[in-house]
Amino acid sequence: MIIALLTDFGNRDWFVSAMKAVILKINPNVKVLDITHEITPQDVREAGFVLWNAYRYFPPKTIFVCVVDPKVGSERKIIAVETKNYIFIAPDNGLLDFVLSEVEVLRAVYVENKNYFLENISFTFHGRDIFAPVSAYISRGVDLNEIGTEADLKIPEKIFVDVSTQGDYKGEIIYIDRFGNLITNLKISNKIEGEVRFREYIIEKISSTYAEVGQGQMVALINSSNLLEIGVRNGNAKEFFKANCGENVILRVKQVMKI
Amino acid sequence: MIIALLTDFGNRDWFVSAMKAVILKINPNVKVLDITHEITPQDVREAGFVLWNAYRYFPPKTIFVCVVDPKVGSERKIIAVETKNYIFIAPDNGLLDFVLSEVEVLRAVYVENKNYFLENISFTFHGRDIFAPVSAYISRGVDLNEIGTEADLKIPEKIFVDVSTQGDYKGEIIYIDRFGNLITNLKISNKIEGEVRFREYIIEKISSTYAEVGQGQMVALINSSNLLEIGVRNGNAKEFFKANCGENVILRVKQVMKI
Amino acid sequence: MIIALLTDFGNRDWFVSAMKAVILKINPNVKVLDITHEITPQDVREAGFVLWNAYRYFPPKTIFVCVVDPKVGSERKIIAVETKNYIFIAPDNGLLDFVLSEVEVLRAVYVENKNYFLENISFTFHGRDIFAPVSAYISRGVDLNEIGTEADLKIPEKIFVDVSTQGDYKGEIIYIDRFGNLITNLKISNKIEGEVRFREYIIEKISSTYAEVGQGQMVALINSSNLLEIGVRNGNAKEFFKANCGENVILRVKQVMKI
Repeated sequence: MIIALLTDFGNRDWFVSAMKAVILKINPNVKVLDITHEITPQDVREAGFVLWNAYRYFPPKTIFVCVVDPKVGSERKIIAVETKNYIFIAPDNGLLDFVLSEVEVLRAVYVENKNYFLENISFTFHGRDIFAPVSAYISRGVDLNEIGTEADLKIPEKIFVDVSTQGDYKGEIIYIDRFGNLITNLKISNKIEGEVRFREYIIEKISSTYAEVGQGQMVALINSSNLLEIGVRNGNAKEFFKANCGENVILRVKQVMKI
Repeated sequence: MIIALLTDFGNRDWFVSAMKAVILKINPNVKVLDITHEITPQDVREAGFVLWNAYRYFPPKTIFVCVVDPKVGSERKIIAVETKNYIFIAPDNGLLDFVLSEVEVLRAVYVENKNYFLENISFTFHGRDIFAPVSAYISRGVDLNEIGTEADLKIPEKIFVDVSTQGDYKGEIIYIDRFGNLITNLKISNKIEGEVRFREYIIEKISSTYAEVGQGQMVALINSSNLLEIGVRNGNAKEFFKANCGENVILRVKQVMKI
Repeated sequence: MIIALLTDFGNRDWFVSAMKAVILKINPNVKVLDITHEITPQDVREAGFVLWNAYRYFPPKTIFVCVVDPKVGSERKIIAVETKNYIFIAPDNGLLDFVLSEVEVLRAVYVENKNYFLENISFTFHGRDIFAPVSAYISRGVDLNEIGTEADLKIPEKIFVDVSTQGDYKGEIIYIDRFGNLITNLKISNKIEGEVRFREYIIEKISSTYAEVGQGQMVALINSSNLLEIGVRNGNAKEFFKANCGENVILRVKQVMKI
């Protein structure tokens, strides 16, 4: 059994280790695995996107504990959501929207039962005092019905732009990865021919790999999560363009190939 | 059984992995868990503070291996300290002072017995050559008396300023976390009313959570380790104030509430 | 059994966690351990050097999975190399040269058999789709002969300059660690007397430890991997010198002591 952690706590302080310590004290047999702790502080949407890219590769029964929680200590609620394969625990702040947009929810509860919290609950570190112990107890077999009452789950808006036929699609940069690649919300499940417009630039081809273009050249490709991505070969597109999340990217699809 | 690592080795080089490799070669059944490796290089006090925030959440029998060791290879000694629940291994340089100020020491020895070191001991990487194998052998059941002779443990000075009654308390910033929150040495175990002075600023209220003040506003609160902390809601107090460790913070306690 | 990961994927995105998820889905009993994921993006040589410093401390049967792979998705091949104690999996791009320069290879194959890949293989994330599952299947006992056909392994050039007698040796900086220490390719297995020249500076002594010189002073020593290293005590030589990899360092050996 795996508990996977996703937070904005960073790797510099003691926050993550305190969560792991609490979990392993309650369930010494669980494996605790980091997705990342380097989410931009309080960037709930970024956390949701990172989770979406990773979660489906985990073994069934994995419990995902996601703590990007700008309103910690206020009246905001915490939800635990069960799907066919997984359980997700997160603040009720939209963090799970990317995942909820594509999975069937079997059950969702508010995390309320203080029997499964630490004895002393701080106002500012629910990761340690609530999320960690609750996830550990669930990993030991505690049923979601024990955790709290049924949650009123908001169905998220459509998050990706599905690209499936010829035409122009307007998307935007939603994430910039460590290599500086600009990842958009344009989702493409087929091989396509077309071109990409970003600011005054036109990339006249959709490549398969970075290695298809020359050193330092711009490249547009469908990335390993089936999203349109703009990069610079052996370079850094973020720095090259001084690009930011939210900027528009236009994809013109000229032909869709069947795979 | 857990061995918890706390170093200034960073996550970029091979140092931490070499320590883990040595540990797991000697005891494949131990769990190795990171507290952090991003302590400011050679900042012994910072390491001690981070350890203090984390250690009490770990399961009994955890062995803490702390390597922030500016005098590695010189005549400085290494100590292994046993308390009711834990064993701590660190250079004898004050790193353990925060913890020792509040725990009862059952035994303390110098780490001396070369039978439990690697065969070749470098002058500059005792983390790999001494700390790692010694901790692994202890996790396999080797008694501290086997590790070395009784250590002459210095009792640390009082580290925190205990705030318990009405009045003015002068503290200082002792740590700045990844969110830029300014953490002081003013320790407060009750709910209080009062105000905080920092430079020319007055924060007129002790809040419970960041969410109690408006976006971008200053907030003073008692943090999850019971220390007075100054933050900026959804902002970064370190950057806002260009604040540094060592700066004074004055707390005026007007009322102490019983909990 | 351990699978040790070494990549340039960083700790900020989901890449490493996706690899670990794939591995643990195939073999829940393997331990996955990070060497580092902070290799400078696409710096194959840096990755090889870090691996060389760490690998020999790992328990026998460890599988090393190394993904610094600028040509991912192109025709470049992936190799799996078996030595007496270990298996190494890496792109066939020279990453393993440091290790191959000193170990005896028992077998080497190209990673080709799609039965051991994920079902859908992206063009840009072979770490998740090929390296991770192949390593997991090998950890479950799949023989290298099942993975692919015999590889044509290039024997790497001599990588280190062996320093064993009196005289002048010309080396270069090949790595700069997190502390700013300048590590050279001058390999020294004995204690020596001599001096080091770097730019216009002369360091007139080879020290054993940083603590042998005064605060902020330059120090030359033989590091924990037996390589000549230039540092600044309690300082940062990289910043002090604005030093870069590739710069020349001259070692004049005046006397070699037998150990």
